[in-house]
Amino acid sequence: MASLDAFASHRERVHRALSQRFGDAWPARFGEVLQYPLSTGGKRVRPVLCLMASEAVGGDAAAALPAAMAVELVHTYSLVHDDLPCMDDDDERRGRPTVHKVYDDGTAVLCGDALLTEAFAVLTEAELPAEVVVALVRRLADASGYRGMVGGQAADVGLGGPVTDVDTLLRLHRGKTGALLAASAAMGGMSAQATGDAMAALEAYGQAVGLAFQLADDVLDADEDAGDDGPPSYVKLLGIDETRRRAEALRDEALAAAAVLPRGEALAALARFVVDRDH
Amino acid sequence: MASLDAFASHRERVHRALSQRFGDAWPARFGEVLQYPLSTGGKRVRPVLCLMASEAVGGDAAAALPAAMAVELVHTYSLVHDDLPCMDDDDERRGRPTVHKVYDDGTAVLCGDALLTEAFAVLTEAELPAEVVVALVRRLADASGYRGMVGGQAADVGLGGPVTDVDTLLRLHRGKTGALLAASAAMGGMSAQATGDAMAALEAYGQAVGLAFQLADDVLDADEDAGDDGPPSYVKLLGIDETRRRAEALRDEALAAAAVLPRGEALAALARFVVDRDH
Repeated sequence: MASLDAFASHRERVHRALSQRFGDAWPARFGEVLQYPLSTGGKRVRPVLCLMASEAVGGDAAAALPAAMAVELVHTYSLVHDDLPCMDDDDERRGRPTVHKVYDDGTAVLCGDALLTEAFAVLTEAELPAEVVVALVRRLADASGYRGMVGGQAADVGLGGPVTDVDTLLRLHRGKTGALLAASAAMGGMSAQATGDAMAALEAYGQAVGLAFQLADDVLDADEDAGDDGPPSYVKLLGIDETRRRAEALRDEALAAAAVLPRGEALAALARFVVDRDH
Repeated sequence: MASLDAFASHRERVHRALSQRFGDAWPARFGEVLQYPLSTGGKRVRPVLCLMASEAVGGDAAAALPAAMAVELVHTYSLVHDDLPCMDDDDERRGRPTVHKVYDDGTAVLCGDALLTEAFAVLTEAELPAEVVVALVRRLADASGYRGMVGGQAADVGLGGPVTDVDTLLRLHRGKTGALLAASAAMGGMSAQATGDAMAALEAYGQAVGLAFQLADDVLDADEDAGDDGPPSYVKLLGIDETRRRAEALRDEALAAAAVLPRGEALAALARFVVDRDH
């Protein structure tokens, strides 16, 4: 299927570009630390979404590569910090020991800090008008920081009190996972210098897919663990049927937005994949 | 003394600007977390240096305020992460409990992450040509990330092996503390759109003061603890007299650079303060 071929080739392009960074690190061993979490497989949904969004509005995938690398660097740093014992305390990710298990907790903190910082350095390498680069920096900072991902994580660790209603859970997820996914689509469009209806469609697509991703995750997780422990979920608050229905409605919103775009087929396939996947 | 008045008024200006951020955080309690480490006293050497550098080349301090806030946000995030139990494990800073003691370790990780991210958001608010903003983003990322501060921290936690010679210790400190101090001066000049000899003098000034700061710290620390434990220091490797001599030589380099600048008096006073202070 053409769309899935695009997925694989975009993923490979991002993987290759990221693998070439940090070779000049001092101490050299710190460069190895930084490469470790980047070198795992992973679906690379965010950077692929970014490159597909650029192509969907007629742009060149190469022009969006810095933005794609930046969103993957931010996603990766967030996983490294999330896995720490003082956060989710995960020993393994994608079948390999997590950064703090291979090295130590302090090194994992520094690793995440450096990956996050490098995301902004990468954006400045984009061969785009300076105004566009500034807008990319702003969008990434808003999506990643307290207004977006980290704010959602703060709510997730309980800083806003227990989450007992769907609206609060939606707000939490718009931050924790939705903001960076939506930014990935938007930053692809911005890298292609899209404007007007095309940017609006990409924004609508990104917002819908950003939330659909989390709802679909909850449906998948519900199959393996229906207990009352663990974090709040849509399945607990809405039941599995209503959660699935909402995920599908968001997928359909994303499909409608993709249909507006000149070359939105790959984005449409991605929206289907996000909601209908079985892993 | 006029120069110390400027120090106090710059510090107050930065303090006020930072205190107005994060009021829109959700959860609201996360906004309180983010304000907590920013609200301590602190010398605010980096943002004051940035504003003074802007004025030294004839610029307006207001134009450099975003850069000044950004370097202070980066410095503050680095302290929050440094204080974690898995790093330096400090319970107090400036006479107050550290972030992870008031809240918890996970919240302190997120707090640092959000402060770092916001540094880049703040830079995009500068009312400067987009090319200048992009250059500021790049400079801050280089100074803060693996090429600068975090790289130096990685060496400091031992990722490059034990530090047994002065050249390695110098390289460590050029990263850990020197890079952000040098960037503070350079970013002040960039915000004033300085070029040529003026920018070169600010770079020379910043590099010299950045290292002098660390050497002077070692001399101060040596008075209270001359034991063999603890991190490597210039005093251990060079003796206190040679360390003091090198700090003074760097101060004189900084003074020579400041003398080239149209209005370098305040920077000259700052260089003297950094090396000759008693705390």
